[in-house]
Amino acid sequence: MFSAIDHQFMARALRLAGRGKYWARPNPHVGCVLVRDSIVVGEGFTQPAGGDHAEVVALKAAGDAARGSTAYVTLEPCAHTGRTPPCSLALITAGVARVVVGLRDPNPKVDGGGIRQLLSEGIEVEAGLMAANVESQLAGFLARQRRGRPRLRMKLAMSLDGRTAMASGESQWITGPQARQDVQKLRAESCAVVTGIGTVLADDCALTVRDESFGHERLPPPMRRALRVVADSHLRTPADAAVLQGDQPSLLLHSREAHSNLPPGIDHTALPRAGRGLAPADIVGELSARECNEILLESGPTLAGAMLQSGLVDQLIVYMAPVLLGSHARPLLDLPLDRMAEALRLRLIDRRQIGDDHRFIFAPQQSES
Amino acid sequence: MFSAIDHQFMARALRLAGRGKYWARPNPHVGCVLVRDSIVVGEGFTQPAGGDHAEVVALKAAGDAARGSTAYVTLEPCAHTGRTPPCSLALITAGVARVVVGLRDPNPKVDGGGIRQLLSEGIEVEAGLMAANVESQLAGFLARQRRGRPRLRMKLAMSLDGRTAMASGESQWITGPQARQDVQKLRAESCAVVTGIGTVLADDCALTVRDESFGHERLPPPMRRALRVVADSHLRTPADAAVLQGDQPSLLLHSREAHSNLPPGIDHTALPRAGRGLAPADIVGELSARECNEILLESGPTLAGAMLQSGLVDQLIVYMAPVLLGSHARPLLDLPLDRMAEALRLRLIDRRQIGDDHRFIFAPQQSES
Repeated sequence: MFSAIDHQFMARALRLAGRGKYWARPNPHVGCVLVRDSIVVGEGFTQPAGGDHAEVVALKAAGDAARGSTAYVTLEPCAHTGRTPPCSLALITAGVARVVVGLRDPNPKVDGGGIRQLLSEGIEVEAGLMAANVESQLAGFLARQRRGRPRLRMKLAMSLDGRTAMASGESQWITGPQARQDVQKLRAESCAVVTGIGTVLADDCALTVRDESFGHERLPPPMRRALRVVADSHLRTPADAAVLQGDQPSLLLHSREAHSNLPPGIDHTALPRAGRGLAPADIVGELSARECNEILLESGPTLAGAMLQSGLVDQLIVYMAPVLLGSHARPLLDLPLDRMAEALRLRLIDRRQIGDDHRFIFAPQQSES
Repeated sequence: MFSAIDHQFMARALRLAGRGKYWARPNPHVGCVLVRDSIVVGEGFTQPAGGDHAEVVALKAAGDAARGSTAYVTLEPCAHTGRTPPCSLALITAGVARVVVGLRDPNPKVDGGGIRQLLSEGIEVEAGLMAANVESQLAGFLARQRRGRPRLRMKLAMSLDGRTAMASGESQWITGPQARQDVQKLRAESCAVVTGIGTVLADDCALTVRDESFGHERLPPPMRRALRVVADSHLRTPADAAVLQGDQPSLLLHSREAHSNLPPGIDHTALPRAGRGLAPADIVGELSARECNEILLESGPTLAGAMLQSGLVDQLIVYMAPVLLGSHARPLLDLPLDRMAEALRLRLIDRRQIGDDHRFIFAPQQSES
């Protein structure tokens, strides 16, 4: 059904799409390549929200050359008017002859509608080319569309013996510089980076995405980078905490009973109180309502343990350093299990060495993704 | 200096040597290939102690064809009479013209003597071909020759969060069947497998090398397999403990103050008392005196922690299972460290996936090997 040439141009569209990964949210980062007589006549990727979608960028680049061309699009073109007019209409108007789609868009507002509209105008449409690659590239967006909540990835940095800090709290430099740079990329890909008040008070972490970790790769301006979120049921975050400074946005999630002493202008939202803190589902729900596709959890053992036990964690990204911190040191997760039958089985997704450390990506076995 | 042909035959000698790895101890497992006019005229590997050395096996196979041949030997031929007559003499008598040696034997009784004897008879000798491979193949033997104590490898099987058992002691099946089979190979390569009395009392482990894990590979009879050693300062091992049953030999190491209620015929040795148990150096010293080249430590956290802190551990072989046992579960090692500066840095030697588990081999950074 698909030729080697089709694969080649879809692979090019996928690479293009990747260039929008830090910029497109809450939209999916999509790539589009327009080809006529085996020559690329236009290409593009999703521009920052409110800007052009990939198809429109490619059509503008092609101009009249788009007529009679084949469009390779990683995700089904939209057929509805959102922040921008529908892309299906733009492809029809430009006279595109054939559209090859990577993955059908599960967004209920699209869901085959884009393809149907193209077909009704006599355009040849084929879907499903390199769909697994698109699934992986847009995992967060697709999770939110399909099941109504974002993808939640949990980052953990530990010693070989599963410890994150000495009993005293001393914890600097467990993993090496390359691993910490890798975490910067995870943050940049995320819509929100979440931590707990314990980590804010202990480490005064900034949770920022820093330009110097990205070399020549351009990042959006700080105000469009990941939302820094603190689960802070009693609003104990100090006004001068690093996580509240700078242009990168912050959000404090607290319980309804908490009284704020914070200066005005700090974004905070009240959630129902649950036990001694906030319910994982309420935290994730609030971020889903804010159109977050990808959440990165970078917290201490308390919140990490609660999130994992809630069943909402899709992936554990574990950086393991070649060092032993000993049996007094702090555990990776507060996870009080008593019997082997309760042990949490994981499925390996990826492993690689990063500097002297090893990065493992696991999915909890009960999770869907 | 060495040709591609030389490399090819030395590689063959190394493979042959591997066939003696479960059999040769306390001798090093050596391989020998005799080549005349580019044709292999005889080959062999070290036979069980008291039997022929590799060179003699090869010479017997070659008969008269050995005259004028080149001998490829992984380790320098011995020049002294031990359990068997010197191999250097056998090579001279057979009329071998050239000897290519992998590694010079650091055994003080040899140490260049074999090479000198061959040279004095006008035989051409070249040494150092694929020496690094021989170093790795004979690491235990070489450690004992060079520094007077065996190589000590510590095997650990743990969850991703660095735990070995639930708080209750429940611990079965953390790692999968392939990892457990890999441990069988480690035991078969070892001269002694050491555990602590805690593990004997909790798990009634047998520590045997079992034929069914080796497929078509032939093992020595049980009485020549690894010595099973229990560090048992108070001689609390029950007479019916699995570690004392069967033909595979056992040894209880206890403190001089302990009184034995054991039936006669059980091998036990008294060592000085050190603190609440035995000193790691005394345990290793006793096994060194018994001509052990390779020691495998398979113990609980107490003995493992003490051994690691003693600085006598050469390698940690860690099997990591994709499971979380939680923060109540038992730690990998009793290793009471308080400050990051005390953290034990490790150097990665090898990593591979074995079934669903990952095996890491690390060397403590202070160790020589």
